[in-house]
Amino acid sequence: MRIWATIAYEGTAYRGFQRLAPSHEPTIQGILETTLQRLTGAPAQVRGAGRTDAGVHALGQVIAFDSSWRHSLEDLQRALNALLPPDIVVWALGEAPSDFHPRREARARIYRYLIYMGPWRDPFGRRLAWHVSQPLDVEGMRQAAAMWVGRHDFGAFGRPPKGHSTIREVQRTTVMADGEWVAFEIEADAFLYHMVRIMAATLVAVGRGEQSPEAAAAYLKRPEAYPAHPPAPPYGLYFVGARYDRIHIPFPPQFLSDSLRVLKDR
Amino acid sequence: MRIWATIAYEGTAYRGFQRLAPSHEPTIQGILETTLQRLTGAPAQVRGAGRTDAGVHALGQVIAFDSSWRHSLEDLQRALNALLPPDIVVWALGEAPSDFHPRREARARIYRYLIYMGPWRDPFGRRLAWHVSQPLDVEGMRQAAAMWVGRHDFGAFGRPPKGHSTIREVQRTTVMADGEWVAFEIEADAFLYHMVRIMAATLVAVGRGEQSPEAAAAYLKRPEAYPAHPPAPPYGLYFVGARYDRIHIPFPPQFLSDSLRVLKDR
Repeated sequence: MRIWATIAYEGTAYRGFQRLAPSHEPTIQGILETTLQRLTGAPAQVRGAGRTDAGVHALGQVIAFDSSWRHSLEDLQRALNALLPPDIVVWALGEAPSDFHPRREARARIYRYLIYMGPWRDPFGRRLAWHVSQPLDVEGMRQAAAMWVGRHDFGAFGRPPKGHSTIREVQRTTVMADGEWVAFEIEADAFLYHMVRIMAATLVAVGRGEQSPEAAAAYLKRPEAYPAHPPAPPYGLYFVGARYDRIHIPFPPQFLSDSLRVLKDR
Repeated sequence: MRIWATIAYEGTAYRGFQRLAPSHEPTIQGILETTLQRLTGAPAQVRGAGRTDAGVHALGQVIAFDSSWRHSLEDLQRALNALLPPDIVVWALGEAPSDFHPRREARARIYRYLIYMGPWRDPFGRRLAWHVSQPLDVEGMRQAAAMWVGRHDFGAFGRPPKGHSTIREVQRTTVMADGEWVAFEIEADAFLYHMVRIMAATLVAVGRGEQSPEAAAAYLKRPEAYPAHPPAPPYGLYFVGARYDRIHIPFPPQFLSDSLRVLKDR
């Protein structure tokens, strides 16, 4: 039986999503596979909707695996959450079509980048947001991000998998502000390596007045200008979720790092 | 020159606020004193508005110390934040009357207890809120907390300093809910040891329907019934701030663990 599950994790302690054989450094995929094997006694292969780099978080990473679990799905979720470390949680789980593949058939992926622009660091958010110690021009950031929507060559913002193109379709960008917090959310069919972190760094350059919104948009005409900016740090980035035609993912719980109310409007 | 400062910290890594001589376990007071000594070359004594136990956090702990610092106060704040570890921040600082004592002359102290009632743990909030994995009756909790306001014998909720009475005056209690999050905030002239954590545990018993709001209030008539409940865990508790007649404390920044908008109405 193929199972889909939606998981959230704080990425701080992990080398990213993808298993690193034969390394012993902890990864999300490695922990999930080890936990499933402990639970069922059989080796397990876990697939994810999107890779996340070391230190990157997820609110709604979608995974799938085959399992010979003989009890209820509720029991499987409870058993997984009992065995997984406290920085990973399975918040939804269900039976998937037997050929469901969370990466290949995702028709859209959503990422978010969280920025804190208070004058001093936030001791509670230090692993969960990028601290930029000055007020940013949020309206300028919003203008720049809006110009990225559409089918474009995003080569200045990221590297493709070997042999692939740098053309992607961005369906939506949102720049949300709430007091000293700014979140950049982006939905696209797929992403290039480091694309959201380079976009976040570009938006911060705009927000600081170092670059105009038009200059940030003009990178779409200069795919050779990689990287537009050095990537923003990984700990501000969240894999928010993926969309599928064949399975319905429920709305996620309101995690603490997701609690700025303006972010609930998607 | 006497300086007041308002600090926030994540208490996870510390044995509490108060220095533990001759132990080498880290405390907030110990770190502050060591940092001041590194900065000025002279031994420093730091006083705080309220002690916090191991694992307890602060949004607005008020401290005071004497310093021979010869540069601007802005430079002192910047130097302190550069030397302090990332889980402690000085978010405001100013000159105080030379006899200012943050504990003795606080006319009120505010604590908050943060509860997450989602069905599964929050990986981002695991050190910052108590996870109670069922929906709570928030209205019942609100009724119980409202009956604690006033001058009462709170002996069932905490222990006094040696030789002192268990009578305290609670000026305000607030139970705020936002989705799966509940916060209990309480303002009083002073607190007994473990008082807010025992009150939070009592409110959760009410929220679970194990105890009526009236029964929670009736502990005020039974000070010998200590402890009303085993204390709720330390990591849900925040020292929010203290009020003074002689110095004005500015409004704090919006920390991530403070971002539930309903909490901003004080």
